Amino acid sequence: MRGLMQDWPLLTHTIIDHAAKFHGQIEVVTRSVEGPIHRTSYAEISVRSRRLADALRRHGVDEGDVVASLAWNTWRHVELWYGAMGLGAVVHTINPRLFPAQIDYIVNHAGARLIFTDLTFLPLLETLAPRLGRIEAYVVLTGPQTMPETSLPGAMDYETFLSHGEPDFPWPKLDENTACGLCYTSGTTGNPKGVLYSHRSNVLHAMACAAPDLFGLRARDVLMPVVPMFHANAWATIFMAPMAGTKLVMPGGAMDGASLHQLLEDEGVTVTAAVPTVWMMLLQHLQETGGALSSLERIYIGGAACPEIIIETFEEKYGVEVFHAWGMTEMSPIGTVYGALADTGKLDSPDLRKLKLKQGRPPYTVDLRIADDKGDDLARNGKAFGHLQARGPAVVAVYFKGEGGRITDARGWFDTGDVSTLDANGFMEITDRAKDVIKSGGEWISTIELENITVGHEDVAEAAVIGVAHPKWTERPLLIVVAREGCDIDRDGVLDHLAGRVADWWVPDDVVFVDEIPHTATGKINKLALREKFRDHKLPTT
Amino acid sequence: MRGLMQDWPLLTHTIIDHAAKFHGQIEVVTRSVEGPIHRTSYAEISVRSRRLADALRRHGVDEGDVVASLAWNTWRHVELWYGAMGLGAVVHTINPRLFPAQIDYIVNHAGARLIFTDLTFLPLLETLAPRLGRIEAYVVLTGPQTMPETSLPGAMDYETFLSHGEPDFPWPKLDENTACGLCYTSGTTGNPKGVLYSHRSNVLHAMACAAPDLFGLRARDVLMPVVPMFHANAWATIFMAPMAGTKLVMPGGAMDGASLHQLLEDEGVTVTAAVPTVWMMLLQHLQETGGALSSLERIYIGGAACPEIIIETFEEKYGVEVFHAWGMTEMSPIGTVYGALADTGKLDSPDLRKLKLKQGRPPYTVDLRIADDKGDDLARNGKAFGHLQARGPAVVAVYFKGEGGRITDARGWFDTGDVSTLDANGFMEITDRAKDVIKSGGEWISTIELENITVGHEDVAEAAVIGVAHPKWTERPLLIVVAREGCDIDRDGVLDHLAGRVADWWVPDDVVFVDEIPHTATGKINKLALREKFRDHKLPTT
Repeated sequence: MRGLMQDWPLLTHTIIDHAAKFHGQIEVVTRSVEGPIHRTSYAEISVRSRRLADALRRHGVDEGDVVASLAWNTWRHVELWYGAMGLGAVVHTINPRLFPAQIDYIVNHAGARLIFTDLTFLPLLETLAPRLGRIEAYVVLTGPQTMPETSLPGAMDYETFLSHGEPDFPWPKLDENTACGLCYTSGTTGNPKGVLYSHRSNVLHAMACAAPDLFGLRARDVLMPVVPMFHANAWATIFMAPMAGTKLVMPGGAMDGASLHQLLEDEGVTVTAAVPTVWMMLLQHLQETGGALSSLERIYIGGAACPEIIIETFEEKYGVEVFHAWGMTEMSPIGTVYGALADTGKLDSPDLRKLKLKQGRPPYTVDLRIADDKGDDLARNGKAFGHLQARGPAVVAVYFKGEGGRITDARGWFDTGDVSTLDANGFMEITDRAKDVIKSGGEWISTIELENITVGHEDVAEAAVIGVAHPKWTERPLLIVVAREGCDIDRDGVLDHLAGRVADWWVPDDVVFVDEIPHTATGKINKLALREKFRDHKLPTT
Repeated sequence: MRGLMQDWPLLTHTIIDHAAKFHGQIEVVTRSVEGPIHRTSYAEISVRSRRLADALRRHGVDEGDVVASLAWNTWRHVELWYGAMGLGAVVHTINPRLFPAQIDYIVNHAGARLIFTDLTFLPLLETLAPRLGRIEAYVVLTGPQTMPETSLPGAMDYETFLSHGEPDFPWPKLDENTACGLCYTSGTTGNPKGVLYSHRSNVLHAMACAAPDLFGLRARDVLMPVVPMFHANAWATIFMAPMAGTKLVMPGGAMDGASLHQLLEDEGVTVTAAVPTVWMMLLQHLQETGGALSSLERIYIGGAACPEIIIETFEEKYGVEVFHAWGMTEMSPIGTVYGALADTGKLDSPDLRKLKLKQGRPPYTVDLRIADDKGDDLARNGKAFGHLQARGPAVVAVYFKGEGGRITDARGWFDTGDVSTLDANGFMEITDRAKDVIKSGGEWISTIELENITVGHEDVAEAAVIGVAHPKWTERPLLIVVAREGCDIDRDGVLDHLAGRVADWWVPDDVVFVDEIPHTATGKINKLALREKFRDHKLPTT
């Protein structure tokens, strides 16, 4: 027997319609790419989104067509999302930080005929254009006055493009499972793979992440998403804010400490979100200028493990609460966010800090488990660690065009590639990447934990741990250390530091000192390169 | 093109599964109907829900079958909801405050073969049983030790019934549009009509109502739903609390001020919800005993307009913030809840009070409009009032078994039967019931507003306004007044009080003094009876 409630599909444009109707005058403020601060409202964005949808339609874009964006967080990018998605098209967001060859690959793979881009990226696109054969037109997110000369074929400014649409364009009827967004993972091996979001997955993800213990946005909040719209749905911020009637403050392309600080203060931002690097820059700026954070209440940090010093400084020096989060493109992206429990308030400061360094707890609609190599559940005791796997309505089922084949097991679990612990309350802590974890005699050793403890030594600048072949134990840890300049530290000094802090059998079999540790484009330790370099390293224990 | 995210249907039992896994040790505390305080946890409730589902299945209950409950808010009732819904059956909640003839009607209309009930209701059911021909068994929500003798056919205690099921019963695969709940409206005219909720509508409704500006439940909250599970989904509390990991405190059948106060204090309740009458009783108890509210932070009031004195007393005397809400069975039930805006904090106390007396704003997924008699939209300026209409995934499409025929218009709007204003921010204020509003010369006069102003006169105990036939204006207002005992007030005194406080043409054409105004079973003014009584009243203006 079916229920008799209304058929009301979960479509992303219902969010901007709701905002226009019930939070119409709430501002969306942008530091424009052209320079000046720009102000608009949800009511205006809603009208311009419909206009854009109609302009796209007149340009020949149909339901199911892909439209690409290579753009910063601005009101125009928001209009593009709502307008194109509302039309039934798919917004393919491109990360400008990918290598040009990767951009080239994903644009051709996704198949867009139109790219919306910012002034910033014209030089890049002018170089790439000859290889982007399918692209028929480049729409530059600016007005006719600021539109530059460009060699790009079919180049047009956004405002002119928009003027071809009608503001009362009626949204077409769509099934809620219609695709609406496409984002490629920046896989460290192989070509990037696309995750194809649906209206339903985006709406449910935003509703789940809006819960009070997660992002908890209210109509009296002011949100600045520094996390970019070009990557992983900007952590749902662009959907959550209009849902709740939260004012949006968009940083455009200026993500330096001074620019962000000015927006935070000028616009009364209460909540913000970004990767740790951004906050390191802001803190440095504040330290140099003696600046304050007078309105900021909460800060969400994800994309990489958050260093303790960031949490400590924001909370103790600036009175801003830090929420550590974890997610991935394949999860829309939010998997976990720190949330206080009834007894968390009783924790002393070091224990609370320890809890906050974990990646947080999953919201309703995100199911997590940790499994051993055989696929059996591991204990959720905060100690056992294993393959972190996820299920839910906003978790990927299959990559775009079926790349990579089957990626869930028989019960629907998607393997995140991370290794983590879970505790009984659902707090999750990443201990490693599955491909980095060291398998020694059938047991696992966390390279991240060894690295973190090693860099706790005052004479160590940076440390990396990799597994090296061992005839008896299969693999044993090799510790690679960059000594702090002018410091005199040796093998025994490092190993003494580790002894007692980790289980005996975790202590690395060898230590190598190097001048530099290689990094990936996104700033992570390049373990692939290290494994390559030390492939034939002979451990003294063999 | 369809998105490629996981197929994860919105099913109510995924909520209790999530709670068991990630908030397993959170308590559900009940003042049991037998007397003692009972403690369990989400983990245990989840196991017992599966056990119940299996016991129901063994008892012959299939997907689509209706199972009735006539029961208080207890942990066993929660298990019944999750267990029966998870099996694909429909939980038909019966309001014990209906007239026996109505209970008789709805039980037979809904078609359950099993009723789960509390000890409290055995005498009532023993009287009704001969007329409840389809009911094959009565399961009493108690254990074998406390099971009384009863003449009810097939009577069994719940714990014995439960013991027939297995705790690891696997939930069957269900479509998210499967019906899961049935609640009848207590219509003032005609037979009650059933609203058939689906898994999807209940889950989406709970996710929407969980938003920070609505119920905003957190894992560190403790929620006591006094609003009964037998009516309108207990305002989604039974779904929202396990979603967020909020401790639940269930009052059982004891809703007097002393019992509620004891639970509030003993269990550290931070949030509670009920109709105004309950809070009047609690406030009276506190006044008599000098009791305090040491943990309570927020209180949600709906079901009837909240008197200003309740808001004032809770906020100013006890420091508890009041959230006024509005909804109806047909809306699952939440339509609007008070929520602060960015500039609300700047309001002075009287203006803020005025805003809080409105019924609040709709969450995302609830669309509201006000329409004139022709169905055209009225201005959302907080002044114009018209038919309040709603749309959304948790708004009724058709009543159970099609009773009442078509109830939405061509664009899907369901008419709530209320008359209200809306302002640009979405704040809604009920001004009347559509059947009570007076249509004078094509314009509307709000009877509720006239009544509220009239009772503001110190010599007036109660007032009612109805429309009486008028040859020129179609209808004109008649004011019916109960004078305060020992007070000497006349027609001119009342009319002088109204003059200047309402538009001239709103001033009633006549005033009648009576000893008593009739009320309905739920305590509202019985305007049907008044219209009947004054049908032939001749206005002096005709």
